[in-house]
Amino acid sequence: MNALDIAPRLITLEGGEGAGKSTVLSALAQALRGHGGEVVATREPGGTPLAERIRELLLHPDNSDAPGADTELLLMFASRAQHVATVVRPALARGAWVLSDRFTDASHAYQGGGRGVDRTTIAMLESRFVGLQPGLTLLLDVPVAVGRARAQGRATPDRIEAEADGFFERVRSAYRDLAAAQPQRFRVIDATQPAERVAADAVAALGDYLQGLAQA
Amino acid sequence: MNALDIAPRLITLEGGEGAGKSTVLSALAQALRGHGGEVVATREPGGTPLAERIRELLLHPDNSDAPGADTELLLMFASRAQHVATVVRPALARGAWVLSDRFTDASHAYQGGGRGVDRTTIAMLESRFVGLQPGLTLLLDVPVAVGRARAQGRATPDRIEAEADGFFERVRSAYRDLAAAQPQRFRVIDATQPAERVAADAVAALGDYLQGLAQA
Repeated sequence: MNALDIAPRLITLEGGEGAGKSTVLSALAQALRGHGGEVVATREPGGTPLAERIRELLLHPDNSDAPGADTELLLMFASRAQHVATVVRPALARGAWVLSDRFTDASHAYQGGGRGVDRTTIAMLESRFVGLQPGLTLLLDVPVAVGRARAQGRATPDRIEAEADGFFERVRSAYRDLAAAQPQRFRVIDATQPAERVAADAVAALGDYLQGLAQA
Repeated sequence: MNALDIAPRLITLEGGEGAGKSTVLSALAQALRGHGGEVVATREPGGTPLAERIRELLLHPDNSDAPGADTELLLMFASRAQHVATVVRPALARGAWVLSDRFTDASHAYQGGGRGVDRTTIAMLESRFVGLQPGLTLLLDVPVAVGRARAQGRATPDRIEAEADGFFERVRSAYRDLAAAQPQRFRVIDATQPAERVAADAVAALGDYLQGLAQA
């Protein structure tokens, strides 16, 4: 089992439903572009044509043969392996910033916390098939009831969005545990605030991180 | 890492292109039905609606974003995890025979031998996500040139069938190594023979196996 390489130019955004990720992503991408250099904005599951097709299998609300927890985990890592090999690593190798809407932490939170898959298995897949850890991860944290109330009235929920509250409580709890265990990498943003305030906090956290990198 | 449970009623058929698997599968299914009891004939990759959709992603000849070796491996095990959980284990639990056209050995041969993925990774995925080993595996062995000549003129080759001869030489070699390492489980059938002879040899090997089970 190899340790993970820290990629300082890989920045990830994590958080549950209704946390305001879209607004924050735009603000972060703009701030990174202002900082200078190429910015690759991407997402998981997805980020390549094949990985987007895997995303469709994962999120389709059809329940006639819904993926079991193990299948879901392996499909997530299949899409991530393709994304890392064809998008993330090549971008980092040419010196670009990579801003990803979700990354491996989401598997620890959703498949680990939400579905109850054991941590050892997820860590093993992360080590063998990802091998990279973001330099900075922003976690948009919001109580489940608040996030779900905001997400109401959007498009039909996908297969995972359609889960019960208990699932999302476990996801939130797993995200907060990850952040508490790795305070040097995570910045937790209070996402109960209005969207512009959340985005401003995220951009400020990014600014601190970039300043720290420049001084390192 | 758990050991694999041997499932005496799980019987698998392995082999490369042009080995005559279709004819043998029909003959084996008929022989098993004659022996008595329910027979579930299935295949990998595939065997469930979701796993068949994963199969399409794996085999589609579109090369614009072809799965890398790691992605291919994870997609194979995602489809296998779903197949094992929703088809193979329930069938074995109710006492049925399961006859599968390919199973985990194919990942050792194609992703391991053919693509060069390390054995440790494949064994780890097998242990964690499959956990089962067939009681009997019939390997239809044929030199690559003979098999490919037979397969010529069939439908457009899928993404894996379109590989070069060197790939299939490595697949064949890996299959033969698996069989040599586990002689108690494998029966190697000379598939250079005419199809009816190959099927007869396979049915005879199955008969020996069933007799051994009855006496055990």
